[in-house]
Amino acid sequence: MSERPTLDHLRAAQDRLHGVARVTPVYSSETLSRLSDRTVLLKAENLQRTGAFKIRGAYNTIAQLSAEERARGVVTASAGNHGQAVAWAAREAGIAATIVVPEAAPMAKIEAARGYGAEVELAGEGFDDAAAAARAREAETGATFVHAFDDVRVVAGQGTLGLELAGQLPTGGSTVVIPVGGGGLAAGIAIALDALRPEIRVVGVQSAACAPLAGKEPGGATIADGIAVKHPGELTSRILADLLDDVVVVDDEEISQAIVLLLERSKLVVEGAGAAPVAAILAGRVGGDGPACAILAGGNIDATTMSSVIRYGMTASGRYLVVALLIPDRPGELARIVGLIADQRANILSIQHHREGRNIGVLETEAELTLETRGEEHAQTLIRALAEGGYTVRRLR
Amino acid sequence: MSERPTLDHLRAAQDRLHGVARVTPVYSSETLSRLSDRTVLLKAENLQRTGAFKIRGAYNTIAQLSAEERARGVVTASAGNHGQAVAWAAREAGIAATIVVPEAAPMAKIEAARGYGAEVELAGEGFDDAAAAARAREAETGATFVHAFDDVRVVAGQGTLGLELAGQLPTGGSTVVIPVGGGGLAAGIAIALDALRPEIRVVGVQSAACAPLAGKEPGGATIADGIAVKHPGELTSRILADLLDDVVVVDDEEISQAIVLLLERSKLVVEGAGAAPVAAILAGRVGGDGPACAILAGGNIDATTMSSVIRYGMTASGRYLVVALLIPDRPGELARIVGLIADQRANILSIQHHREGRNIGVLETEAELTLETRGEEHAQTLIRALAEGGYTVRRLR
Repeated sequence: MSERPTLDHLRAAQDRLHGVARVTPVYSSETLSRLSDRTVLLKAENLQRTGAFKIRGAYNTIAQLSAEERARGVVTASAGNHGQAVAWAAREAGIAATIVVPEAAPMAKIEAARGYGAEVELAGEGFDDAAAAARAREAETGATFVHAFDDVRVVAGQGTLGLELAGQLPTGGSTVVIPVGGGGLAAGIAIALDALRPEIRVVGVQSAACAPLAGKEPGGATIADGIAVKHPGELTSRILADLLDDVVVVDDEEISQAIVLLLERSKLVVEGAGAAPVAAILAGRVGGDGPACAILAGGNIDATTMSSVIRYGMTASGRYLVVALLIPDRPGELARIVGLIADQRANILSIQHHREGRNIGVLETEAELTLETRGEEHAQTLIRALAEGGYTVRRLR
Repeated sequence: MSERPTLDHLRAAQDRLHGVARVTPVYSSETLSRLSDRTVLLKAENLQRTGAFKIRGAYNTIAQLSAEERARGVVTASAGNHGQAVAWAAREAGIAATIVVPEAAPMAKIEAARGYGAEVELAGEGFDDAAAAARAREAETGATFVHAFDDVRVVAGQGTLGLELAGQLPTGGSTVVIPVGGGGLAAGIAIALDALRPEIRVVGVQSAACAPLAGKEPGGATIADGIAVKHPGELTSRILADLLDDVVVVDDEEISQAIVLLLERSKLVVEGAGAAPVAAILAGRVGGDGPACAILAGGNIDATTMSSVIRYGMTASGRYLVVALLIPDRPGELARIVGLIADQRANILSIQHHREGRNIGVLETEAELTLETRGEEHAQTLIRALAEGGYTVRRLR
């Protein structure tokens, strides 16, 4: 059983990370505060180097290797933020790194790790195969395996974020909300705050699709892939069992809306796992009085996914409305519909015509309209206006 | 002719803004540095309150009003960042504000100003009508008109960003790149740097669609609407003529790619005008040696526009490929094509079938495929693979 990191471990990690990791800012958000009826603070760790907190733990581990270990390099298995962090930290420390990723890993992530100078090895179908290949390489070459979370040095590194928070949060009680996958970040922050600011509540948040700490069976895919970890660490689980005040769960729809709000109102790009704490605060699920601080743990969401999430998040909040209208297939009819929509000051994003399909008559066509509205109320008004214009309106989304 | 602001004016503005405006961070960007072969620094003013630098000038102006002036409130004309800034600054100062916007202004901007407690008045078709209405209200009610740029107090307020920069930029020569619309921000920063860091070059950047300082006739719409100002101010023009080292121009394609890079790599949401300096640096257009610092002046881009820009920027860099294939209209044919694409590890974003149109035979269909690639080279490889598979491939975008 491994030793638990103490405040001294965290402070030593902070010294090692000085000038290497950024001290990321904490901002208050007026919009999020209004929406959740309490002061909302954002720890913008998405602005950390490589776009996520993971370099804190990776660098703290690598910086403690002996000359002999350095010469043999490091290895890890990860297609995500941890892989990039190990690649980056190894380059900063001037040693070799191998990142093993599943064969189906997104090209962008592979290229990011290569861009930091790491060797990338493709192995197997899923994460378990990649992890086995990385452990095989460790045994074969003597390279040090850098764990993503279940390691005293890693937890101590992530805990430096908690040391920053202790100085950045306003005096008095507040609630800090942390995404929990393997548990390294939450464990590190909890240790720091327990020692320095014991009055602060610490709440973990997991995705509904994978919430072992909340006793849920893993489900399907989630936008919060960064915290979709089926088995939290042994070390981290023990720390979290002692120090977390609560664990709450959010779903992908809530996370998507949080991502869109952070983009539009806070000007921050935050990935699914990183936005989960904001989703939990907005859902009124984190409890406690006073300010709530969301740890925006990472920002690594690719542009295509961002674009999809914007569409999904805006649809979920009624700002995108998709309706199907049966209309006579003749000139002038669409102009009338477009006029009705313009009168309501909604924006038409796309029109698609369907002439094949059930319940569409020979001389009819179904027009599928995607509209941008000001929100659910405006969407309802639009549907009413179209119905009053004599059309059969079917709301699709 | 109005007096020019001095370093003392800027310092007094900084005192007034203490605890009101944020001191925004400067970050280096590894990716942008690699792409432009020089150190690229980002002044993240998009993280300023209300999402743009404008509150510096607006608040500095409002804070200097007499008790009598405060009682009569302020008025301005703007559908953009300045309108929101005046609304916000007036609320902070506890006085009334009226923002006059053209009738066609986006609902989101109107609601943002209302959200800060301002009265919003809709007037006329375009900006000129709104400005006339605001001036009429000034004459009628005695409210103080807050100019968006051509005012000593406004320029001094924007100059506080330059005071911050003077302490944030590395020692030695560098080039600061500033978006120029009315010229208030560039004039203010130039005054600060001329006084405190005269070794630093100051370069303005305008949109190709509206670049009066570069002697170009205004063209059409631009994604950089925040700097599409046909007539820079009288005061600001004089300052810029003295203190700017150069003015360069970027087009919307360059700006879109800069927006996408800032989203993906720097995790920052930046609007068109705010991304123009990054576009100019990436295009190798700003000159000078050593680091280049881009002023990310604002982040107010709505989610729908962001989604469009992502598509446009990714298409421009070859990461979205749109091709039309003529294929026999029979089962199994599409499966073969999808297989060819999977072999090349590209992602299919959408497939549309066209059965009507010129040059499509009775038993043929045209499939329009939107694909996500790793870049232009990968796009070319894909087109070759489809052609070698026996299909007639027409590249649409």
